[in-house]
Amino acid sequence: MMRDLIEEVFVGEFSDVQLEDAATLEVPAGRLAFSTDTFVVSPLFFPGGDIGHLAVCGTVNDVATAGATPLWLSVGFVLEEGFPLDDLKRILVSMATCAREAGVKIVTGDTKVVDKGAADGIFINTAGIGLVRARVELSAANCQVGDKILLSGTLGDHGITIVSQREGIGFGTTLQTDAAPLNRMVEAVLDVAPGTRVFRDPTRGGLASALNEIADASGVSMLIVEDAVPVEAQVQGACEMLGYDVFQVANEGKMIAIVPAEQADAALAAMRNAPYGADAAIIGAVVDGAPGRVSVKNPFGATRIMDTLVGEQLPRIC
Amino acid sequence: MMRDLIEEVFVGEFSDVQLEDAATLEVPAGRLAFSTDTFVVSPLFFPGGDIGHLAVCGTVNDVATAGATPLWLSVGFVLEEGFPLDDLKRILVSMATCAREAGVKIVTGDTKVVDKGAADGIFINTAGIGLVRARVELSAANCQVGDKILLSGTLGDHGITIVSQREGIGFGTTLQTDAAPLNRMVEAVLDVAPGTRVFRDPTRGGLASALNEIADASGVSMLIVEDAVPVEAQVQGACEMLGYDVFQVANEGKMIAIVPAEQADAALAAMRNAPYGADAAIIGAVVDGAPGRVSVKNPFGATRIMDTLVGEQLPRIC
Repeated sequence: MMRDLIEEVFVGEFSDVQLEDAATLEVPAGRLAFSTDTFVVSPLFFPGGDIGHLAVCGTVNDVATAGATPLWLSVGFVLEEGFPLDDLKRILVSMATCAREAGVKIVTGDTKVVDKGAADGIFINTAGIGLVRARVELSAANCQVGDKILLSGTLGDHGITIVSQREGIGFGTTLQTDAAPLNRMVEAVLDVAPGTRVFRDPTRGGLASALNEIADASGVSMLIVEDAVPVEAQVQGACEMLGYDVFQVANEGKMIAIVPAEQADAALAAMRNAPYGADAAIIGAVVDGAPGRVSVKNPFGATRIMDTLVGEQLPRIC
Repeated sequence: MMRDLIEEVFVGEFSDVQLEDAATLEVPAGRLAFSTDTFVVSPLFFPGGDIGHLAVCGTVNDVATAGATPLWLSVGFVLEEGFPLDDLKRILVSMATCAREAGVKIVTGDTKVVDKGAADGIFINTAGIGLVRARVELSAANCQVGDKILLSGTLGDHGITIVSQREGIGFGTTLQTDAAPLNRMVEAVLDVAPGTRVFRDPTRGGLASALNEIADASGVSMLIVEDAVPVEAQVQGACEMLGYDVFQVANEGKMIAIVPAEQADAALAAMRNAPYGADAAIIGAVVDGAPGRVSVKNPFGATRIMDTLVGEQLPRIC
């Protein structure tokens, strides 16, 4: 019955979907980007999104960060016996709607049902294929002193939304996940800033993990200006209450771009004009200093190290 | 710690593996095959294989059935907190070993850990990309009266192995899963039988589901000669004891090929010479008759309908 529903929603309502054992897809010669993520978020539904929407955004964004246009997704469901069909339908419609927005097709899938108690409701894996744009050479090892660090919007919305749902704490009436497909934004930035060094979506581990990884890979230092980093007041307040560092909280609809200084203004304008990029900002720069060190300068001029999160802050955040 | 172990086994011991957020892969112009499967088999370890080996074989075979050379796999793990690291390592080594045998690279991955009780040990999703061979046009809708139906070996070994493990029944000391990567076999058949209409690996639902689907899609009848279908004596005995129809039991290392009559002997010889194909046989033919009807002729000359399994015979068989 679950398989029938999946067929009905994916194939029936969305006629651009074909679910076969193996889909066949025409490609030009070039480079593919290939990525996968499994989604186990709890709760399944939360303000601004759900596990299905997240499962499409997450893989679309991973493919996009490679400088690729995401084209095709696979989807694998693990369903606990007795999972409500209405919830499944809601999740499927959400996936199909998000895939359509992102311009990707769900082309192949698999469903496994396990006995009651053997899984917690539903887990969703997506894998995605994209075509890497010609003449794009992105790498975390590419950054150079002088490069600007761009962030596409406010930090921490997803992580704090999930915590607040899970713990039953209301931090604000308007707080919702930022989960969104960012492939159009990446394309818009590359159109005007073809020299972009690297993109990264700061999911688990947040901005801190992403920047530290890049700084390590490039053997450079980075300096972030705390005041320049967009954060919603209610997210900042929640972080203070819970003892979280907002730089370490997960995001699902934000993009970091590191761009040569001379292309930074154009990249910023492109981000701001792209969907989900209205609050984009230049938050810092690649600077001389110890390889791998990421520092934050506070409004009083003092700097501290931006530490990477050790271990997992929040299980089942995505 | 689990992520470290995955890195160590996949990247350390198997240096042809790179695990990144998104792998980038060079492709020529042409057609890709793209497939996914999630594996939730219980128990995790069984005679002749384990969930890791199965997860590689399953997707390799789905890609191969499209007439493609499987090249790249993604892997997504869901791990229950406290899952034994020794078991994880055994599974990882098994995956890497099977991938190497099949000639595919595991190029991107993701690991999620869920709280105790939220999953049953480990679930594994794999997605695979292959390149479809030039001038190959496979489709379940291609079959014509006169075509021969080939099966690469004995039926039912996987399903009966899992049941016997799960229920603690020993049906025979030598019984083990048939799970195996069949991409070399598919290539060998296509080399000598380029007119092959369709391949199908008879997993869930067994031979009966696979043949009924193809007969439906092509609008033809099929006649299977019961005596020609290879079945191990202990599997036949187990099916009789449990009330299973061996044609409906799952296989994980068998391939059906439907081939024009004039290429059937060459295809059979290629199957028999390929890895895992020693017991291959021509088990029947496409015949005139009601569209979608699959019949079996028993040794006494009587025919019966080969029914498709309704519902799921065995949960968590793969």
